[in-house]
Amino acid sequence: MDFDVFAKDCPSRSVLEHLTGRWGVLTLAGLRKGPARFNALRRRIDGVSEKMLAQTLQALERDGFVRREVLAAMPPSVNYSLTDLGETTADHLLALIGHVEAHMPAVLEARATASR
Amino acid sequence: MDFDVFAKDCPSRSVLEHLTGRWGVLTLAGLRKGPARFNALRRRIDGVSEKMLAQTLQALERDGFVRREVLAAMPPSVNYSLTDLGETTADHLLALIGHVEAHMPAVLEARATASR
Repeated sequence: MDFDVFAKDCPSRSVLEHLTGRWGVLTLAGLRKGPARFNALRRRIDGVSEKMLAQTLQALERDGFVRREVLAAMPPSVNYSLTDLGETTADHLLALIGHVEAHMPAVLEARATASR
Repeated sequence: MDFDVFAKDCPSRSVLEHLTGRWGVLTLAGLRKGPARFNALRRRIDGVSEKMLAQTLQALERDGFVRREVLAAMPPSVNYSLTDLGETTADHLLALIGHVEAHMPAVLEARATASR
């Protein structure tokens, strides 16, 4: 079977949306720095609400990018990490992020020109 | 100045969101196949509404990824193409898309396991 994100009903479209949705990119990229518990991850991703991070992690776990482990500690805590597929995917996203950050001066110049 | 998408108020955060928003990825990737008029581009991106495509193109043009040219034809028409920065950015997105499409069997298996 061939998958094509350009086709509305292809399941790859929803996977791409989970990855690239408002918080998907930052969650995967944030976990690429290493496994983290929920609150530590939330601190890495400035501005994400508890609810949005929980939803994002749930979708990424369901699609096989994120692994969730309940630690037998007191109080019990949950650890999140990337699967192998999550790591290779996060590397693509980090390359994109690096590209965007590196070209921000050009982007800001374009914005300034557009608003003139 | 250093840019950091993990910081809520860094302008790179909004640029990343325009690129990776619901239709940003597909619009840039769609234009990587070559310049297109609005309706032709809309046909490449199955399921996008006229309004959403117009908004997406506007944000990408403002950030300097997309070039908009009004053609002196009758009736007048508008041609969209990628800037140099748009092309290099689209290449990152196409790499991500190729990665996602190639790993869809693993994703679907993860989903099936999750719903068991």
